[in-house]
Amino acid sequence: MPELVSRREVMIEWGDCDPAGIVYFPRYFAFFDNCTAGLFAAAGLPKPDMVRRYGIIGIPMVDTRAKFGIPSKWGETITIESRISAWHRSSFDVEHRAFKGEALAIEAWETRVWAARHPDDPDRIKGVPVPDEVKALFAGTAA
Amino acid sequence: MPELVSRREVMIEWGDCDPAGIVYFPRYFAFFDNCTAGLFAAAGLPKPDMVRRYGIIGIPMVDTRAKFGIPSKWGETITIESRISAWHRSSFDVEHRAFKGEALAIEAWETRVWAARHPDDPDRIKGVPVPDEVKALFAGTAA
Amino acid sequence: MPELVSRREVMIEWGDCDPAGIVYFPRYFAFFDNCTAGLFAAAGLPKPDMVRRYGIIGIPMVDTRAKFGIPSKWGETITIESRISAWHRSSFDVEHRAFKGEALAIEAWETRVWAARHPDDPDRIKGVPVPDEVKALFAGTAA
Amino acid sequence: MPELVSRREVMIEWGDCDPAGIVYFPRYFAFFDNCTAGLFAAAGLPKPDMVRRYGIIGIPMVDTRAKFGIPSKWGETITIESRISAWHRSSFDVEHRAFKGEALAIEAWETRVWAARHPDDPDRIKGVPVPDEVKALFAGTAA
Repeated sequence: MPELVSRREVMIEWGDCDPAGIVYFPRYFAFFDNCTAGLFAAAGLPKPDMVRRYGIIGIPMVDTRAKFGIPSKWGETITIESRISAWHRSSFDVEHRAFKGEALAIEAWETRVWAARHPDDPDRIKGVPVPDEVKALFAGTAA
Repeated sequence: MPELVSRREVMIEWGDCDPAGIVYFPRYFAFFDNCTAGLFAAAGLPKPDMVRRYGIIGIPMVDTRAKFGIPSKWGETITIESRISAWHRSSFDVEHRAFKGEALAIEAWETRVWAARHPDDPDRIKGVPVPDEVKALFAGTAA
Repeated sequence: MPELVSRREVMIEWGDCDPAGIVYFPRYFAFFDNCTAGLFAAAGLPKPDMVRRYGIIGIPMVDTRAKFGIPSKWGETITIESRISAWHRSSFDVEHRAFKGEALAIEAWETRVWAARHPDDPDRIKGVPVPDEVKALFAGTAA
Repeated sequence: MPELVSRREVMIEWGDCDPAGIVYFPRYFAFFDNCTAGLFAAAGLPKPDMVRRYGIIGIPMVDTRAKFGIPSKWGETITIESRISAWHRSSFDVEHRAFKGEALAIEAWETRVWAARHPDDPDRIKGVPVPDEVKALFAGTAA
C-alpha cells in the first residue's frame, strides 16, 4: 500500500530572505513545520483536531537536521515533499525533500514527540503513546 | 592554548513562543545564527567587517542539526555557548550548547561555507578558502 | 475603469501564533508585505522584475498602521484584499483588508517609497519617481 | 512625578534584515512588542507574572502604527525608548521611539487590550478593566 506523501509549493517571499538575497535558513524550518502540519491534514487530521481530539499540546521537535544544497531566492518557488519515515512509541520521524524544479535542493529530518502536559506538573511536557488510529491514517487503512 | 568560546544570554520573548507556550523551534536556529555572528565578533571580526574585508556574501548554512532536550518558555533566559569545532578548506563547523541554569537544554551543530558570488554568474554562490588569518583569530594567535 | 484589487488566502500556521494561540501581530505585517508583492505581481510586475527593471532596491515602508478587530487562530484561513489607494511622486499608499468569512477582521495601511541607492553614498537610500508605466499597470491602461 | 520610561538596546542581526540589507519592517514590531514587555518588567511586572497574577491571556494589539524615518542595517545598534502614553478602562497606549545615536529613527504607537478569555466562550477574548494597582506601578506610586 502506498504511503502518504504530501506536497506543498512554497513561494519564497522577500521577507523570507536575508541580505545575501537567499532564504534565511531558519525560515526553512518554519516551512518544514508547516509541511508537517500539512501532512497530518492530508491524512485527515488537521492540527487543531489533532490537539483537541487527543488532548496533546502539540508535536514538539526533539531532533532535526537539514542539509542545504541549492539556495533559493525571493520570487522563486520550491516544492516540498513530506512523509512519515518511522513511528516510535511516543514519537515519530518525518522527512522533507525540497525541490527546485527537478533538482533536490534540501533534505531535512525531524523527530517529534506526541506530547501532553505532565499530569503532575502542567509546566512540564511528557511524551505519550501515539494512538494506533493516528498511525493507521498514514497507512491508508483507517476508515 | 584555549580555544575561543563565546557566551550569549537569550531572554525568551513572548513572540518567540508558540501556542504550546514554548519556544517555536525555528527561532532557536535564529538564536544560533546570531550566536555564530557573535562568536566571530568576539574573535574581532564583526560580520559587517567580515563581509566587507573578505569580499564574501556571508557564511551560508549547508548542514545543521539541533537536539532539543529541555523546552523553554517566555520569560525564561538561556545561555548559549558557541565555538568553532573544525575548520575545513572553504567551510567550518560550529557547535552551540544552550543551558537553562546548569542543565544542558539543546545541542546544535552547523556547517557553513565561506561563500562568495560566483565569478561567472553573480546569481550563484561558491565556497572560497577561509583565510588563514581568520582561522588564526580563533586560536588566539592573530595580532 | 475598475482598479486592481488582489486577493490572497492565508492559512494561519501554528508558528504564526503566540502563547495566547492567536496570530502574533508582527506576522500580519509580513502577510501584508507579501500581499503588496502579490498585488504588483497581479499587475504584471513580480518584485524581482520590478527591482531589476527599474534599478530600485525595493519599496521600503515609511509609515504603516493596522487596526486589529477580530483575532485569528492557527488552522483558520483569512482572505486579504489589497489595492493601491494613492500614488505620490516617489511613494505610494496601499490598503489591505483581511476578512474572516464575511467579517472584516483587520484593516491596514502602508506608505512605501520607490527607493534606489543614493548616487553619492551606496549606504543610503533615496526615493525616486515612480515610473508612469508602473502606475498605469494598476489602472489597467498599460499595454 | 516622573513617568516610567524604559530603554533597550537592540543589535540588528543579519536575520533581521531583508535583501535590501536593512531591517525587514515586521521585525521592528517584534522589537517593539519585546520593549512593551520590557516596560512592564521595568515597572515590576514581568509578563509571566502579569498573566498569572491577573488571569489575563496577554495584552493583544488592537491598533498600531509606525513611522520609519531612518533605516538600520545589520551590525548596527538602535536604542528604543518606551512609555505608557495613556491608560483607558480596559486598554492602554504605548509609545516607542527608536534612536540611531542621537537621531530619531522610528516612532511607533500601540493600543493594547488587557484581555481575558471570554467567560461564555473560551475561544473568544474580551477586554477587562486594567487593575488600578497596575496603572499605579507606572506612576511610581505603588508599594
